[in-house]
Amino acid sequence: MSRRYDTVSLLTDYGSDDEFAGVLASVLRDMAPHATVIDLTHGIRPFDVRGGSLALARAIPYVADGVVVAVVDPGVGTARKAIAVEVAGGAGVLVGPDNGLLAPAVAVAGGAERAVELTDESFHLATPGATFAGRDIFAPVAAHLCNGVDLAELGPAVDSTLLMPGMVPLPQEEADGIHAEVLWVDRFGNCQLNLSPDELPGDDDVLAVVIDGERRIAHRSGAYGDLGRGQLGLVTDSHGMAALAYDQRSAAAELRLAAGDAVVVAAVDETSGTPHLAAPDTPIAAPVSSPVARRPSR
Amino acid sequence: MSRRYDTVSLLTDYGSDDEFAGVLASVLRDMAPHATVIDLTHGIRPFDVRGGSLALARAIPYVADGVVVAVVDPGVGTARKAIAVEVAGGAGVLVGPDNGLLAPAVAVAGGAERAVELTDESFHLATPGATFAGRDIFAPVAAHLCNGVDLAELGPAVDSTLLMPGMVPLPQEEADGIHAEVLWVDRFGNCQLNLSPDELPGDDDVLAVVIDGERRIAHRSGAYGDLGRGQLGLVTDSHGMAALAYDQRSAAAELRLAAGDAVVVAAVDETSGTPHLAAPDTPIAAPVSSPVARRPSR
Amino acid sequence: MSRRYDTVSLLTDYGSDDEFAGVLASVLRDMAPHATVIDLTHGIRPFDVRGGSLALARAIPYVADGVVVAVVDPGVGTARKAIAVEVAGGAGVLVGPDNGLLAPAVAVAGGAERAVELTDESFHLATPGATFAGRDIFAPVAAHLCNGVDLAELGPAVDSTLLMPGMVPLPQEEADGIHAEVLWVDRFGNCQLNLSPDELPGDDDVLAVVIDGERRIAHRSGAYGDLGRGQLGLVTDSHGMAALAYDQRSAAAELRLAAGDAVVVAAVDETSGTPHLAAPDTPIAAPVSSPVARRPSR
Repeated sequence: MSRRYDTVSLLTDYGSDDEFAGVLASVLRDMAPHATVIDLTHGIRPFDVRGGSLALARAIPYVADGVVVAVVDPGVGTARKAIAVEVAGGAGVLVGPDNGLLAPAVAVAGGAERAVELTDESFHLATPGATFAGRDIFAPVAAHLCNGVDLAELGPAVDSTLLMPGMVPLPQEEADGIHAEVLWVDRFGNCQLNLSPDELPGDDDVLAVVIDGERRIAHRSGAYGDLGRGQLGLVTDSHGMAALAYDQRSAAAELRLAAGDAVVVAAVDETSGTPHLAAPDTPIAAPVSSPVARRPSR
Repeated sequence: MSRRYDTVSLLTDYGSDDEFAGVLASVLRDMAPHATVIDLTHGIRPFDVRGGSLALARAIPYVADGVVVAVVDPGVGTARKAIAVEVAGGAGVLVGPDNGLLAPAVAVAGGAERAVELTDESFHLATPGATFAGRDIFAPVAAHLCNGVDLAELGPAVDSTLLMPGMVPLPQEEADGIHAEVLWVDRFGNCQLNLSPDELPGDDDVLAVVIDGERRIAHRSGAYGDLGRGQLGLVTDSHGMAALAYDQRSAAAELRLAAGDAVVVAAVDETSGTPHLAAPDTPIAAPVSSPVARRPSR
Repeated sequence: MSRRYDTVSLLTDYGSDDEFAGVLASVLRDMAPHATVIDLTHGIRPFDVRGGSLALARAIPYVADGVVVAVVDPGVGTARKAIAVEVAGGAGVLVGPDNGLLAPAVAVAGGAERAVELTDESFHLATPGATFAGRDIFAPVAAHLCNGVDLAELGPAVDSTLLMPGMVPLPQEEADGIHAEVLWVDRFGNCQLNLSPDELPGDDDVLAVVIDGERRIAHRSGAYGDLGRGQLGLVTDSHGMAALAYDQRSAAAELRLAAGDAVVVAAVDETSGTPHLAAPDTPIAAPVSSPVARRPSR
């Protein structure tokens, strides 16, 4: 066996209050001591598969070559598949549950090249209970990959087109503006939309933003600190997406926005005088194409 | 001096808001640069020695050979001893305060083989104040161990039977069922009991659970996701213990349970029609034997 | 190019819920795979430059030789400079925004020896948006330094005396006692003051502490656990500073104190019978000299 990988990057909803993430790192340290473990984050909200999938997609262009273990896994121990997906000519392997968590990152990385179901238990740890696949399946498999085990040894090949897709909502152009959605609220309260700045309507420096029926003016900006005091911005964020933001204040708190909430963006003249209500229950389609795939990588 | 250890695993109540944990890692990096630092967790509740001791005992079967530094230490700077305990034929050394924090993990690892009190200050850092033993005593001692210093050089031997024992409550069989206790509430709200599934009464798929006088039906299960919507489960958790759980909901929030709370589990026919009240103030004995020691290790 | 550094220590306000800190580590892993990354903390409150600067100053005597990347950067993307500052004969380089964040740590490390503005974009990553300088400027620059790039290659020299100073308040002796300020509230609720124990008035074991007009008695102590139940202490903390503390209770919660709040400390006889009110709006000067610079290093 030749060593294949020397970095394992982790993304989970395990949090930091328990020893879950540390046990993952311990299993890797024990089984593949040459590998370096990178904690991308363990702060995904419990069970938030979509939030985890977007965070992984945002991170993946910066992740070092190697194995990625991602675990947001409400179906752990049930019939949902455990999978490993090879990308980028073998430069990377993503390991985790087949519930859509890996899909956007796989897309950003250029698509799945090989995929297997992790059924060969000789590469897993014996377990006193089936509820911690990170410890018992995903981390051991990552260690074996680092030690040179080929993907094909881990279980039968699966057709990557049959893997669970990721659900990333696409913006919809409607009469009253572009119906967008909050993809992500970050620690600072900035609200990333599923819009790139060049999809914003018109060329004006200001735009109308309608949230839950309430209309506000937002200013295009390239930096939070260039916004005036109390001025709402549509800032080009670090992924090249449009984000609702204030300078040193939480837009999420101010606008009462959470991931998944609807936001309508329109040219000012489209809406001035006639504050159109956003229909908050408008279904937002979630087809295959993903804005994350448009993000520049290095 | 020959190098002895190349992994130091950390478990503390330092949290992540301050630089405490980072300073521990920095001292280790500076004094034993060849060693890899694994953060098991720094999220133990402040001063929660029992919670920390259980987390360490859960983790220890998965911790890589090396030194473990554990710090939940309300008595820092007082007369409580600082100790190092060798286990598993020298494969591991646990370093920390002598307040019961290390005891359950030492038991899981097979018992103390040698123990010393960390009195030789030449292996410590000079300190401007006595309140941060992790930085000034435990991390430097761990670094010296990694660099090949023998345990016996660090201070006088102590009789390991005189070390502070860990307090793990044993379940009690009573007329109205098994009186158990919540050992741990994890991030997801799952409530681990001090019961293994084979200690649950009867063979039925359903059991009665009485919490603070209120009786509920719980379903045995091997996976959270196999529970129906709103169905309370007694799930075999990743340590082989019985845990109260819901699918994608917090059992702790739903049942208002915290670590240390009393739970009575009974066969359904024992309690049906006559909802016995659990006596919430029944004293629960806490003798030597520990359920964690029954957990399978690899 | 000769390799110059093999440790990069990180301190940011990125938190742990998002992948920001993990992406920093990933960029470093990718660009300088030989370097070890130490997370000092990512828990600085969002935008809290002063809090971050004090945490970095407290940590710096324990940080391993190498590069330090510090990011609390509300002005990211604006005209504020990005800088790198060499200290300690080249043993360390601090990298971050020029907003005062680095200044106290630079002072503790003996002062700036060389400083440059990070303007040469060939050492940065191409970026889809200007809001994540940690990922696009600071981490890549740190990686290049680790790989042997000299500071002078990164951009034009800047006069280190023109860098933004850190603002650390000095205590003021007044008629009613020493007017001090809370520098830091730690996870345990201990409130570090900008006073060393030898600046406390008189030699008595007890002192008067006046907070928001309310007078309390505090006991000098070397350990939290030596304080009686409910007894307020002035404990010599791990940085040799005086801290308001209780045993296993949060002084910050009990006294309703936060970083920046005013505290007057006086000898008991000065205040007994005549409870002087602290003037909460007294301006507190913030000149050059810093209490952190008085802290012993190893």
